[in-house]
Amino acid sequence: VVPVVQASELTVTHGSSAVVMKYGFPSLANIKTRESYVTSYDPRTRTASWVIEKLNHSSLHGPSNRKFCDFKEDESVHIFHRATSADYKGSGFDRGHLAAAANHKWSQKAMEDTFYLSNVAPQNPHLNKNTWNNLEKHCRSLTKHYMNVYVCTGPLYLPRQQADGKLYVQYQVIGKNQIAVPTHFFKVLILEKADGSGVELQSYVLPNDQVEEKVPLEHFLVPIEMVERASGLLFVHNIMKRASSRQKITANR
Amino acid sequence: VVPVVQASELTVTHGSSAVVMKYGFPSLANIKTRESYVTSYDPRTRTASWVIEKLNHSSLHGPSNRKFCDFKEDESVHIFHRATSADYKGSGFDRGHLAAAANHKWSQKAMEDTFYLSNVAPQNPHLNKNTWNNLEKHCRSLTKHYMNVYVCTGPLYLPRQQADGKLYVQYQVIGKNQIAVPTHFFKVLILEKADGSGVELQSYVLPNDQVEEKVPLEHFLVPIEMVERASGLLFVHNIMKRASSRQKITANR
Ligand SMILES: [Mg+2]
Ligand SMILES: [Mg+2]
Repeated sequence: VVPVVQASELTVTHGSSAVVMKYGFPSLANIKTRESYVTSYDPRTRTASWVIEKLNHSSLHGPSNRKFCDFKEDESVHIFHRATSADYKGSGFDRGHLAAAANHKWSQKAMEDTFYLSNVAPQNPHLNKNTWNNLEKHCRSLTKHYMNVYVCTGPLYLPRQQADGKLYVQYQVIGKNQIAVPTHFFKVLILEKADGSGVELQSYVLPNDQVEEKVPLEHFLVPIEMVERASGLLFVHNIMKRASSRQKITANR
Repeated sequence: VVPVVQASELTVTHGSSAVVMKYGFPSLANIKTRESYVTSYDPRTRTASWVIEKLNHSSLHGPSNRKFCDFKEDESVHIFHRATSADYKGSGFDRGHLAAAANHKWSQKAMEDTFYLSNVAPQNPHLNKNTWNNLEKHCRSLTKHYMNVYVCTGPLYLPRQQADGKLYVQYQVIGKNQIAVPTHFFKVLILEKADGSGVELQSYVLPNDQVEEKVPLEHFLVPIEMVERASGLLFVHNIMKRASSRQKITANR
């Protein structure tokens, strides 16, 4: 079956929120729409709660050049709650993209918008350059098999049992503005089948730590419910509301 | 100068959001309006980010009886992110009211609404029964001197330096649903002068811990900016937008 592509889909810019948010808003706080993504900012942690992008063949190709991009403060955020590059300096953490720059070659502006520090979180440099980078490549490669790949990325702050037997959330904060260092990151992929028969979900959770490169990405697959409980966000409920009855939702195949 | 009270103020119910939120919304996520307060829920921590009430002479007096009130789950919150009384059982923490029950004697429904577990956070029992209770009484007593007392209450998760010299946020989570135990609580009071000449602010931060009863409440006064930075919320900016030029805003006098 050849998918029927709506005319509107061909003309609307990639980053417009109506297009990116086809499967709903995981939460409704401080929503911002940028050229390449839609995001919800958490002023308490000074990072996004989530960032959603829509990838497909055409968003991945174009003339954009990362050389002309620079990290920048998000001036739409009050200075009390805004991350600066100075906060990251000497912290030992990378400015890790949530929406990846290389996903938005279609427009220089779209690529530049991924460099807002509100689209960034403190990330282990080894993770950023290796396994996390592989996960970003995996998202892009899925555009070969799916009509559209919606990618939702965000930080997690997971509890751990301590010596007293109780569960505690513990995370570092860096810089004068006390940017939270997530304990983990998630990516939820909503994969739209070309034949319109439904969507598949893939949910990944990676520790914000050096990860042995040989560990395959499949090792980090988790049930979507785990991400939903830990993040405070909802995905499946939103997708269900929008899926037609003949569409199937499959998770983590 | 005798304040000109608008007719609408006399007829509108106490809890209606237009009345309670006269000085704006500290944030815009998951806003809920209840009979006695307006609140913003944080599904990740399973507690409110803030709760605002409006107190005055008439809200403090009436036929309500706490005996007929019982803690209850907030069914408007998805079960993944909802606190239950079972989560608190055996945790060593009280179900501590954010909007206080005794502030809403004017209506049984208003008092009952303060018993939603979304208006509650895990609180040190000694603090709850002593210094925190005194702070709640202080808020009520201010209605003798001010026309209206707006009280905004919420949890804080403050960083602390650890042995490695770095700053970490650390907090316990309790129960099957992993309810966050705040490290501190804040109350921001917006005090409306009877002569309409302006508002005064008082901001308190108390540790979620046993506090020596003899320590006076003034000891816990902090600059409003401290609460704004730590909570991710904004108060002064919202008040400024709404204050007429002749009105003075005074903090912590
Ligand atoms: Mg990166
Ligand atoms: Mg109490």
